Amino acid sequence: MTLDQNDLQTVTTAYAAPEANADRIVLNGEETPINARTAIVLREMRALLPDSHALKSTPILIKSRNSFPTAAGLASSAAGYAAMVTALAGLYKLDFEATKIALSRIARQGSGSATRSLLGGVVAWQMGAREDGSDSQAEQIALESHWPTLEAIVCIASDRKKHVSSTSGMGTSLATSALLAYRASALVPTKFARMRQAIASKNHALVFELTMRDSNQFHATCLDTYPPIFYMTDTSRSVVRLVDELNGNAPPRFAYTFDAGPNAVIFCDAKDTGELLEAVLRRFPPSKAELRADADFLHVRGRTTRTRAQVLDGIAHGAGKADAAAEEGALMYVFHTGIGRGARVLEGDEAAARRLV
Amino acid sequence: MTLDQNDLQTVTTAYAAPEANADRIVLNGEETPINARTAIVLREMRALLPDSHALKSTPILIKSRNSFPTAAGLASSAAGYAAMVTALAGLYKLDFEATKIALSRIARQGSGSATRSLLGGVVAWQMGAREDGSDSQAEQIALESHWPTLEAIVCIASDRKKHVSSTSGMGTSLATSALLAYRASALVPTKFARMRQAIASKNHALVFELTMRDSNQFHATCLDTYPPIFYMTDTSRSVVRLVDELNGNAPPRFAYTFDAGPNAVIFCDAKDTGELLEAVLRRFPPSKAELRADADFLHVRGRTTRTRAQVLDGIAHGAGKADAAAEEGALMYVFHTGIGRGARVLEGDEAAARRLV
Repeated sequence: MTLDQNDLQTVTTAYAAPEANADRIVLNGEETPINARTAIVLREMRALLPDSHALKSTPILIKSRNSFPTAAGLASSAAGYAAMVTALAGLYKLDFEATKIALSRIARQGSGSATRSLLGGVVAWQMGAREDGSDSQAEQIALESHWPTLEAIVCIASDRKKHVSSTSGMGTSLATSALLAYRASALVPTKFARMRQAIASKNHALVFELTMRDSNQFHATCLDTYPPIFYMTDTSRSVVRLVDELNGNAPPRFAYTFDAGPNAVIFCDAKDTGELLEAVLRRFPPSKAELRADADFLHVRGRTTRTRAQVLDGIAHGAGKADAAAEEGALMYVFHTGIGRGARVLEGDEAAARRLV
Repeated sequence: MTLDQNDLQTVTTAYAAPEANADRIVLNGEETPINARTAIVLREMRALLPDSHALKSTPILIKSRNSFPTAAGLASSAAGYAAMVTALAGLYKLDFEATKIALSRIARQGSGSATRSLLGGVVAWQMGAREDGSDSQAEQIALESHWPTLEAIVCIASDRKKHVSSTSGMGTSLATSALLAYRASALVPTKFARMRQAIASKNHALVFELTMRDSNQFHATCLDTYPPIFYMTDTSRSVVRLVDELNGNAPPRFAYTFDAGPNAVIFCDAKDTGELLEAVLRRFPPSKAELRADADFLHVRGRTTRTRAQVLDGIAHGAGKADAAAEEGALMYVFHTGIGRGARVLEGDEAAARRLV
């Protein structure tokens, strides 16, 4: 599911820098070295251009800024590489819509997940069949208009940087986990077909059950890795428990999923988001110490915003009784967002207004 | 691995109580209701007796006491049922050595793991082939004299009672985890054969690697259960990390394993136990608050004992520098034990001295 750019966004500007000696990247205002993956992306973008293209060998300056924390488990690198190839497509005056799938394959060289972020709505990452991976690319399963009320509460755990980068973790898993091999060859194809069908037929409860079970199974293969990889923490487990409680024995209205980190994304339909948000805030209120440190810090961001003071006030004066299982301070903050469109080239006044200088 | 009774023990006395109306059990000094599983064990023990046996229908009084915490993840129920059938075998004057495998099958009705606890050294639990499970029983893989220097540090996490009992958890896993089905049918038979061979040939590094990988894979199938079962906590993960650090890139000298709970058992050869114990105490020192509450409480028990004050003193004045990753108070205490013999019928002076009255 591609998240709504109105709530979380990466804005990237690409400049031709003919006077410069080399390509440069400025990320969130800081000069950042060009790593091997980024160099491949830049090279492949140039390879798309005919030899006659005016900018074919011109050095590039890229400026990029996230409206959300970088490297905190919010897929900032997927968003970053998707935005980078999109900005370069704009600079190079490529036909963005016609080139999108090629761009998606290039973005994949920077971050696997970036291949999906070019497109909106619900997107699959097709493994592809070719030995060299050149047909491993994104496929849009559903437009964002197919289920426009699909929303997400992203729970950012109060944890330090994750121990293992998701890319190196997957390599170790492939090399050592017998369960991952079985999952990939015997289970995923069937799961994938069921999920595609459940989305197409808007069987929300089945989409949610498959989401939770697939998240659990992914983390199971991480644990089966040697040495084991742990992305989920005690806080992650508490979120799982809360969602289980909210779902009860009825068809699930809420679904957790965990990427390569401790943060939960909880999906639900917009009609249920209020109930979910209230339950999350009651189970995971900000700690008093956090509140004193910076009372104006937003504890809820995105479509809904609430300061820490508002959250505490809501808990103190809310209708229900206190949550006996409350874990103060376990979440750093919460994002409220929904399904959105994919990357796009900004033009005209909008481009002028948002250009990073 | 059966643990040494000198360090952790269950002592059980069985009395004939001809005046009583019904069987009774007193566990750790408290009258305890006879549950369905215990009733089956008592019934099957009586079924072993010929009709002419004087005690065939005599009510029984059982008194049992553990030298270690009950229901804290230390397999107290396995020890308890093994001791119960052993004490009854003594009371009924059965030939204990000749009846041991039959007793092991009966103990299994109380607690699956109890089937192993009758025997000493390294014990396997054979699944068996019969539909009714009657050939699912223990097999001694190695005598305790085969590897007498095999030791264990048991790390008791400072956690509340576990959320899911191990028996009900396994039922949900069987019903919902595709990875468990694959593990049981396709992976375990090969793993088991490798482990048996590694033990026989005293390939310590391979025994340790297989131990860790199998523990991880078991917990992976728990996570693949729906809803997921979490036995390992953040503290468990920290123990895994510490063991990984101690092993480095060399063949492993230490191996963690986790049963259906957060507590780690770390195996090593006796020559390495001192190094391990020091590392565990430095990484997981008792908290200052715990120390103040009860300074004389033993933080290390079993073959080695140390009070909390001794532990803190050792950390403060030890040769090495402080552990930057230390997690104060994460472990409640630590047991030091080793490989031991299985259950036995006490006789003569020893029986008289240890009888529970």
